[in-house]
Amino acid sequence: MASAFTTNATITSFGGRFLKLTHQSATTGTPMNLTLYLPPSATPASPAPLLVYLSGLTCTPDNVTDKGFLHAHASSLGLALLWDFGSAASFYIDSTRDPWSTNYKMESYLTKELPGLVFGAFKELDSSRVSISGHSMGGHGALTLYLKNPGQYKSVSAFSPICNPVNCPWGEKAFSGYLGENKEEWKKHDATELVKGWKGPLNALIDVGTADNFYKQGQLLPENLEKAAKEAGVSALDVNYREGYDHSYFFISTFGADHVKHAAKALGLL
Amino acid sequence: MASAFTTNATITSFGGRFLKLTHQSATTGTPMNLTLYLPPSATPASPAPLLVYLSGLTCTPDNVTDKGFLHAHASSLGLALLWDFGSAASFYIDSTRDPWSTNYKMESYLTKELPGLVFGAFKELDSSRVSISGHSMGGHGALTLYLKNPGQYKSVSAFSPICNPVNCPWGEKAFSGYLGENKEEWKKHDATELVKGWKGPLNALIDVGTADNFYKQGQLLPENLEKAAKEAGVSALDVNYREGYDHSYFFISTFGADHVKHAAKALGLL
Repeated sequence: MASAFTTNATITSFGGRFLKLTHQSATTGTPMNLTLYLPPSATPASPAPLLVYLSGLTCTPDNVTDKGFLHAHASSLGLALLWDFGSAASFYIDSTRDPWSTNYKMESYLTKELPGLVFGAFKELDSSRVSISGHSMGGHGALTLYLKNPGQYKSVSAFSPICNPVNCPWGEKAFSGYLGENKEEWKKHDATELVKGWKGPLNALIDVGTADNFYKQGQLLPENLEKAAKEAGVSALDVNYREGYDHSYFFISTFGADHVKHAAKALGLL
Repeated sequence: MASAFTTNATITSFGGRFLKLTHQSATTGTPMNLTLYLPPSATPASPAPLLVYLSGLTCTPDNVTDKGFLHAHASSLGLALLWDFGSAASFYIDSTRDPWSTNYKMESYLTKELPGLVFGAFKELDSSRVSISGHSMGGHGALTLYLKNPGQYKSVSAFSPICNPVNCPWGEKAFSGYLGENKEEWKKHDATELVKGWKGPLNALIDVGTADNFYKQGQLLPENLEKAAKEAGVSALDVNYREGYDHSYFFISTFGADHVKHAAKALGLL
């Protein structure tokens, strides 16, 4: 079978390979851009577990692969990385409202179509060991896809995530557009609401910078997620407030090693 | 005394601080952009040694500070970093020909004006312990400023440097414009020529990627530098050819730790 992907570039870094990939998604009806990092240890005989990383609103493939620096740590641990860049302000949900409902199907794309294509094309990857992470809007995506699909991902982590979109301006704007005005529908895509129904330890790591303007403006609301988890008796939610750090890649790269290790541990590499 | 610099941004990363600086240079008559990274250990009571990094032709401050990732290693070693971005294709020399001779004075700027201003303004830095590094055209700048100013820098390193500009198309174009047609003048700014007169061990580290198109096109010529050093009996020139790596920041960041350690050793930190 021919690969579903076109490989536009292959770049050597830290002993492994970046593959810049494009393909046509049947779910969204649009071309999609992905970047895959294969660590040097990954072979079909010894496939690597995978950490999927969801980007924030303003990110491009080049931003996150160049600046996030997760691959430096993933290389030596034997972890593969897959960066997805979504469609603008998709919020990583399936829209139910026109005009977005035709193409804005990021949840189905990420949880259904993409795994089949990626694990079909790359035998260097172990489809049974997958974790998820993300930044900002992508942190919201990582948390909610994890909470909505128990067992699909072995762990979750997020940098500066939007934790309670039903109660922040960014979330209100996106959800009213994509889902309509019924706020009960919104709650199905809100980490703070979803965590209330979680069974067992959460296995989640979150870092937030205290000098992050979006945090200070109340767009992220990690405290609400912490409170909801505590009240629901959900353990293993590790939220760190990092003094003086902002919302940028200077923040992500500083704590990237912690997030790679968090996934590596859940995926049996540590 | 008021600082010569305007601080446009301060960004926390790896426990230290990036300062995005501008100032008006008396030497070049133009505004100059610099980025300084102060590791967490740097204080006026315990000033940090400094590694100066000269950028390549197409680089901007954001490129190299975001993607090079040198600060991740410098932070824990207690090394400060200063990135200079030059003026377009300056080649880090003082031009002697109009119309460039008015403003293209990067050699004087870097070796004379800038140290006075930086060490005057930042008491967290130790003016007696400085090394130099660079990429591509900036690698040429690092090697030649080191070779022309014995004792000013404790070590030199370079990623994919232009090693023999008098014999490559980039160098021929730049030097004929900035210096005129007398090739004996060109040799004063060519690492392969300058190394012939070096006394003592060179204390130089160079990395070059074998998949670097500029290397393959004969723009870099590290072999010529190696040959000249060997014939002149100059020791301690460590040139590594890295299989499969290109000219990009994916290459620089992979070997950045080696270059930071090379400088840290020469500066008494290791």
